Amino acid sequence: MNRQRLEQLREIHRAGLLDDVVPFWERHSVDREHGGFFTCLARDGSLYSTDKPVWLQGRATWLFATLYDRVAPRAEWLDLARRGCEFMNRHCFDERGKMYFLVTRDGRPLRMRRYVYSEVFATLGYAALAKVTGDADIRRRAIEVFNTFLRYTRTPGLTEPKMNPQVRPLTSLSPRMCLLNMADVMLAIDDDPRYERLIDECVTDVFRDFVRLDEGCVIEHVGPGGERVDAPEGRVMNPGHAIEVAWFMMEIGRRRGDRALVVRGAKILDLSLARGWDPQYGGLLYFLDVDGKPATQLEHDMKLWWPHSEALYATLLAYHLTGDAKYAGLYEQVHEWTFAHFPDREFGEWFGYLHRDGTVSTPLKGNIWKGPFHIPRALLYCWKLLEEMAS
Amino acid sequence: MNRQRLEQLREIHRAGLLDDVVPFWERHSVDREHGGFFTCLARDGSLYSTDKPVWLQGRATWLFATLYDRVAPRAEWLDLARRGCEFMNRHCFDERGKMYFLVTRDGRPLRMRRYVYSEVFATLGYAALAKVTGDADIRRRAIEVFNTFLRYTRTPGLTEPKMNPQVRPLTSLSPRMCLLNMADVMLAIDDDPRYERLIDECVTDVFRDFVRLDEGCVIEHVGPGGERVDAPEGRVMNPGHAIEVAWFMMEIGRRRGDRALVVRGAKILDLSLARGWDPQYGGLLYFLDVDGKPATQLEHDMKLWWPHSEALYATLLAYHLTGDAKYAGLYEQVHEWTFAHFPDREFGEWFGYLHRDGTVSTPLKGNIWKGPFHIPRALLYCWKLLEEMAS
Repeated sequence: MNRQRLEQLREIHRAGLLDDVVPFWERHSVDREHGGFFTCLARDGSLYSTDKPVWLQGRATWLFATLYDRVAPRAEWLDLARRGCEFMNRHCFDERGKMYFLVTRDGRPLRMRRYVYSEVFATLGYAALAKVTGDADIRRRAIEVFNTFLRYTRTPGLTEPKMNPQVRPLTSLSPRMCLLNMADVMLAIDDDPRYERLIDECVTDVFRDFVRLDEGCVIEHVGPGGERVDAPEGRVMNPGHAIEVAWFMMEIGRRRGDRALVVRGAKILDLSLARGWDPQYGGLLYFLDVDGKPATQLEHDMKLWWPHSEALYATLLAYHLTGDAKYAGLYEQVHEWTFAHFPDREFGEWFGYLHRDGTVSTPLKGNIWKGPFHIPRALLYCWKLLEEMAS
Repeated sequence: MNRQRLEQLREIHRAGLLDDVVPFWERHSVDREHGGFFTCLARDGSLYSTDKPVWLQGRATWLFATLYDRVAPRAEWLDLARRGCEFMNRHCFDERGKMYFLVTRDGRPLRMRRYVYSEVFATLGYAALAKVTGDADIRRRAIEVFNTFLRYTRTPGLTEPKMNPQVRPLTSLSPRMCLLNMADVMLAIDDDPRYERLIDECVTDVFRDFVRLDEGCVIEHVGPGGERVDAPEGRVMNPGHAIEVAWFMMEIGRRRGDRALVVRGAKILDLSLARGWDPQYGGLLYFLDVDGKPATQLEHDMKLWWPHSEALYATLLAYHLTGDAKYAGLYEQVHEWTFAHFPDREFGEWFGYLHRDGTVSTPLKGNIWKGPFHIPRALLYCWKLLEEMAS
């Protein structure tokens, strides 16, 4: 990539973030009356539901605190992050300290789920806000929620698995993927040596059990000894997840000056794109069966906003850290498809759900999973990396 | 429809059932070693999983018993139905008598779910087999499983709802739709007067709360007083469900000689097709928001095998019972799209999951929901009705 292209891309990501995506959420998602964030937004930003998904309260908190930290110390961003944090404090925990999945506009609990992914994003949100405010109470919250996540994912029997563990015991990539990122974020506010140790454990687990370099795939679920399980759930690959793992590893490698980890992360990216990129229509498939059997998820061949957002940053980071021109080519491939299909030129922000052929399946801008997170994170991280690369 | 067309359609349905669909499942789904039925079949019928979904054990049992009853008393059909029944007896109930959702090939329990839809299809299977065998033990099983369904759907708190019932209490169409059909089937083996009473209650509930003739829609979930709930789950319509309700009502009306019920059932069909038929590509949408807000299900605009199967029989039955030529036109519309897109001319049987534009999303022939049920039921019922109409 020449200097001109780097500068052009830098401006595309900066403008996408600050002139389009962030203003869209600032305009439509803030609940000035009850606090917290709406995310069930139709194409034009109008609300089709006032229910508040808890994942997105943590994610929005993370975003606004991180914009304050990395873009500019604007009072309104800090205020929005604080409002997200307060809404979580007040309404998103049950009496055991476990977080809900969905609450009403005014914070009454609608759904609790088995797992602890609300805790993942709350950890990111609290930690980002604790970092910029230095507030001891918020810092304490971050540590508590991180501990809840650890307890629920590591205490056998505490999270009821989908499949009967006596008959088909499975271990999963997701909690390890989340933990890699959470621990890396926690390091900014807590000097407890456990975080580096947890990261090491995750890296070991992920490469021993889930990343299959010989087979060229990343598997979501394996048996308790890391063995392949010959059932649909034991053959499923989620290329977007694998790409997130790839860049989390590369970021940790960069921070630690661990070149070998960067290279291993880049290898995950290679195989994720080799497996996940749709040879017919382009773009990343959502789920696939690594043995070429039929994927069982109805949405398996849809193109979603978040794997593409993650792939933008992962390819750019791989290019920057390895210097291998291959990744510049992969970045451009992802960039071209993503920017050609996802942004909504009429109402702003990005569509989230496309059919396999790239046409829009639903025009909504947000729901209980899509909110102000993957797109602005990728735009911010790419922009800042491109600044570094251009200088 | 003239006589020639009736005879042509009769042959299409007969041949589809007996020369294609039934042989496909006979060939690929029978587990001669452990009993029961495989349903996780790839395009060519090869297995991609040996796990056995419990819904499909009951459904396959129903199919083979019903073929024995209505097509020909072939010993192999009776044997297959008995094998399904025995597999359920032996492996599909937990210690409380509640049925699992998924078991392994050899019958070890993999998943229990909150709700009691396994019981719906087990009731149909046991009842159909009890009818053709007169076996008192199987009849007793049918009644027991029917009672389990009633207990779980009518005892507050016994089935944990998805949404917190203190904050958002909802009542749903699904159990009422199922009960309409189950009670009608139970009448063939049990002269308890409660079944007609239960049907009357369901008809009343469905028309009072879920079918909104003034708004031209059928809603899946309402508040406890039948009121509209302004949230995505309170605005969702599933045209396939509504079409099943329509023909269940028409069948009950036909059996009872209740012309008013036939006409009311046909009205549900009218509005289901008016709402659900895709004006752009044809075919029935899977989910929609009755207020025109974005549907939240990722698969909302996919075209699935079962709503189309149900619509074939519903339109034909409406034509036969009302004599209104409009329904002949609607039948032909459904027939044309369905037979143009779903049957797999190369490997037999039908694809299950198409994109909105009618292209195939996954080539699988079966999974934990798709098995030998909706398609052969529609083909059988249409064939037999066309015989009646042609004679």
